[in-house]
Amino acid sequence: MSMPSVSEDKGEQKMELWFTERQTPDVGLTCRLTETLRFERTKYQELAIHQTKQFGRMLILDGTVQTTEFDEFFYHEMMAHPALFAHSDPRRVLIIGGGDGGVVREVVKHDSVESVELVEIDERVVAAGREFFPTISCGLTDPRVKVIIGDGIEHVRSAEGAYDVVIVDSTDPVGPAVGLFAVEFYRAVNRALRAGGILVAQTESPLFNRDILSHAVRSIRQAFANTRLYLGPVPTYPSGYWSYTMGLKSDVDPAQIIGDKPCPFATKYYTPEIGRAAFALPPFVRDLIS
Amino acid sequence: MSMPSVSEDKGEQKMELWFTERQTPDVGLTCRLTETLRFERTKYQELAIHQTKQFGRMLILDGTVQTTEFDEFFYHEMMAHPALFAHSDPRRVLIIGGGDGGVVREVVKHDSVESVELVEIDERVVAAGREFFPTISCGLTDPRVKVIIGDGIEHVRSAEGAYDVVIVDSTDPVGPAVGLFAVEFYRAVNRALRAGGILVAQTESPLFNRDILSHAVRSIRQAFANTRLYLGPVPTYPSGYWSYTMGLKSDVDPAQIIGDKPCPFATKYYTPEIGRAAFALPPFVRDLIS
Repeated sequence: MSMPSVSEDKGEQKMELWFTERQTPDVGLTCRLTETLRFERTKYQELAIHQTKQFGRMLILDGTVQTTEFDEFFYHEMMAHPALFAHSDPRRVLIIGGGDGGVVREVVKHDSVESVELVEIDERVVAAGREFFPTISCGLTDPRVKVIIGDGIEHVRSAEGAYDVVIVDSTDPVGPAVGLFAVEFYRAVNRALRAGGILVAQTESPLFNRDILSHAVRSIRQAFANTRLYLGPVPTYPSGYWSYTMGLKSDVDPAQIIGDKPCPFATKYYTPEIGRAAFALPPFVRDLIS
Repeated sequence: MSMPSVSEDKGEQKMELWFTERQTPDVGLTCRLTETLRFERTKYQELAIHQTKQFGRMLILDGTVQTTEFDEFFYHEMMAHPALFAHSDPRRVLIIGGGDGGVVREVVKHDSVESVELVEIDERVVAAGREFFPTISCGLTDPRVKVIIGDGIEHVRSAEGAYDVVIVDSTDPVGPAVGLFAVEFYRAVNRALRAGGILVAQTESPLFNRDILSHAVRSIRQAFANTRLYLGPVPTYPSGYWSYTMGLKSDVDPAQIIGDKPCPFATKYYTPEIGRAAFALPPFVRDLIS
């Protein structure tokens, strides 16, 4: 497939190129491109990288926006920091998915962390991150980080008692990510966690993906007695309003712990107050998971 | 202008109709319609009402989404409740703009409120709300409510010491709403407030409208010594992440007061915890207003 590549230094581009993600059958986010930097079919999915006017570079898998330079910090900070601050001493961290490296970049900001394993099924995602998203993938060069190309589900099954925090940075539950939303997987994560360990998973939009969210939370509850949902904005994700779910192997209140723990490094979105605030659930969300 | 109207009872509609709002020159929200219920040029603006698949009925002024049945509760609850709960005894409330009635519906849930004046410049907006958005405009029939068709700026100038809470539910600062973002207006609001009074205004997206937000907050600061920004989701507004700014004629911390005050009526989004949490600002937003 031939895709356009237009040099910017010849003046303002006349041709309008727009990418539209249909977030549901009835609503889309559309954004103007200057060029497509990569378009390929990997072993697992269709991968595209666009240079957009509004959001900088944008990574798209199977037609779905995964991350953009403009707003990636919301998601990556909220995937990493609540769980790491809620844990009393997070040393060994596993990230499943997230081959772009954004969650890794945030995890390695925590001095207590001794090792980070990133298990990404699609090596082309890691390669694309390294080549096109240097500000997102930069954490992958940290000496504590090991990138493993493989199946996260298999990896978790064979890793009993190995981790303090497991972060499931999956795509939507279609294609390679279906198994990452199943009870059996969450149970395997529980076994892969040491005492006091914490799972965190992205659990989709409380507005456009109510069924997925409900199902994911109920499934995590079957594997973890202490399960907490939290929320935050991600402008380029469907509805712009996103949910994350924690499963804890202890009975602590993560919101309380996070709110009292100062954040010793720079962030764009996360603060202890924001972390605590994210656990305040609107009645309509409580209804979804009750 | 002739607009399509397709009856739904003849089976699935074959023709695809999509409305797109360009939220910036480079990004748009696009949604599927089944029909256009109204399209007119009023004395002040172009008014359209679409029946959408995802968001229910949608009110559009000058091409910009004002409200939808699906997500109106986020905005209307957050415009009304933080200010009304932060005030010790809100009796007289003025709403400027907001002719659809959504903020009124929330304000009249507060038993302390004795009178609500809604000053809307465009009578067609009020008429459209009454006709097409009964679940939003329902509060307008409350006996405490008086709808005034007129200029909010003029109204405020001639109302010294008249109100406990003034809510500025404006459109974007183009067309009729420009004056609602000016220092002179905020100073007039200050004079129109009684002791302990509170102004609250919608102040746009911290991502797509950074200049407007910064300007609005700085202007409100020139009129009110105690000024607080707060945030929340509104999925159909640009970036899905919205800001509101309070100006207070007292030195109280509204987040603290709100968090401690139980909410005695039903809501979909607002709770005391959500209200308090909304004032937790991310570093990138603090930077915008510092």
